Amino acid sequence: MRTSSIIEWKEDGITLKEAEITRSDSSNCRGEIYVVGLGPGDLEYLSIKAFKVIKEVDVVVGYNTYIDLLEDLIDEEQEVISTGMTKEVDRTQLAVEAAQDGKRVAMISSGDAGVYGMAGLVLEMVAENELDLSVEIIPGITAANAAASTLGAPLMHDYAVISLSDLLTPWEVIIDRLEKAAAGDFVIALYNPKSKQRTEQIKEARNIFLKHKAPDTPVGIVRSAKRGTEEMMITDLENMLNHEINMVTTVIIGNSETFTFADLMITPRGYEL
Amino acid sequence: MRTSSIIEWKEDGITLKEAEITRSDSSNCRGEIYVVGLGPGDLEYLSIKAFKVIKEVDVVVGYNTYIDLLEDLIDEEQEVISTGMTKEVDRTQLAVEAAQDGKRVAMISSGDAGVYGMAGLVLEMVAENELDLSVEIIPGITAANAAASTLGAPLMHDYAVISLSDLLTPWEVIIDRLEKAAAGDFVIALYNPKSKQRTEQIKEARNIFLKHKAPDTPVGIVRSAKRGTEEMMITDLENMLNHEINMVTTVIIGNSETFTFADLMITPRGYEL
Repeated sequence: MRTSSIIEWKEDGITLKEAEITRSDSSNCRGEIYVVGLGPGDLEYLSIKAFKVIKEVDVVVGYNTYIDLLEDLIDEEQEVISTGMTKEVDRTQLAVEAAQDGKRVAMISSGDAGVYGMAGLVLEMVAENELDLSVEIIPGITAANAAASTLGAPLMHDYAVISLSDLLTPWEVIIDRLEKAAAGDFVIALYNPKSKQRTEQIKEARNIFLKHKAPDTPVGIVRSAKRGTEEMMITDLENMLNHEINMVTTVIIGNSETFTFADLMITPRGYEL
Repeated sequence: MRTSSIIEWKEDGITLKEAEITRSDSSNCRGEIYVVGLGPGDLEYLSIKAFKVIKEVDVVVGYNTYIDLLEDLIDEEQEVISTGMTKEVDRTQLAVEAAQDGKRVAMISSGDAGVYGMAGLVLEMVAENELDLSVEIIPGITAANAAASTLGAPLMHDYAVISLSDLLTPWEVIIDRLEKAAAGDFVIALYNPKSKQRTEQIKEARNIFLKHKAPDTPVGIVRSAKRGTEEMMITDLENMLNHEINMVTTVIIGNSETFTFADLMITPRGYEL
């Protein structure tokens, strides 16, 4: 059951130099599910732990796009179960079934598995059916923190993380949270700000923010944070809607102290320099 | 200027199998500072990128305790500058000076460098003095996400991150944020909940939460998340003060939907199972 993996950095990225993976003999084992946060995108933002778990398991389950990212990590002996987007419940069911067969399963999730990710669904299914499975959540770098690092240091003080997707949450609940977070002068990170179908939420959110925050409050927009295709820009509440915001965008709105310098967005912590 | 590192997992943890580190010739270089989030504790929660940067730089700057964690990573040719806690401004000054000498510097920070960490201070100093330095922030897994993964999946829905330390922030501002976050039914992650000197803030915070949240709202308490000495427990608002809370503790208070099952704390995202 011991595992040893070796990774190497080369000019063209991370490669597996050599691997001596000893996977468990699946027979007579209690199933195990690892819900693994992959971090924001490129594999170098994986934790060493996540890397190790993905190398060790018998089965990797995930959304197609993220499975593709892991292509170089997964070897031929590992089973891969991939499904399309919005198939979260089906995917979880498949992962649970594989674990019930005594297999070691990695259910992968982008960012941190515990933030709008797959961790909750796996645990809800385990709880609802009182399943005797070992579940471990492997945390990852969530989109708010990844986008913040690209922008500078906007999350240096108290912050709120809010998803604008009303697919699973009533819009009134989201509106109330936007109001409270803005009134409390939190830095605010918005997940799922806009999709092809949902185009009005980001406008309403901005209107709410403008009731409590100045029009020149800095706003950072990061698309595909920490992926090869990353794009970022720093604007303000007044002008934020003039920039492209889509499904792979994280939007960060500053607090009353947030300032910009060159292409940086910085929220002071309060130190005297 | 190319770097290649190889790490290996053994029974006793991560070791460097072989390293061919080519550091920059410091003369005539523009200085570079990497502000590196180490993640919650044990080195396996480092991102591969953070690992690589720490191996590459000429100088590693940090708080003693975190420098000690990196002992096996840092080699003899690397300069180490460590200072005590609360010396954040001094430490930043030393990092900036080393970079101004043309060196490549890693300023390390626990968790995510951009959440109550060193990223803001480094960038504030660069902005205030309009320094011509290259600064890159390497994100990490912040304590809220690490503690959440230990507890199950409490941060699966909108959440607020609030520090109870009033050393740099007026207590009235913190109280107002606690009020707003509780009234908005956010899941709430508390950083710096209590120290030897600050013992009343966590009591006041609880009183504020009880105005808006039920006494049986689940509360997760995690000490030393993802370190060898990790301890966790799940309680509720009514009873949370009966458990040890200290400087290395993260406290997570559920929203109105959060439930517990066995030793798990789960906030549903809203899926139909």
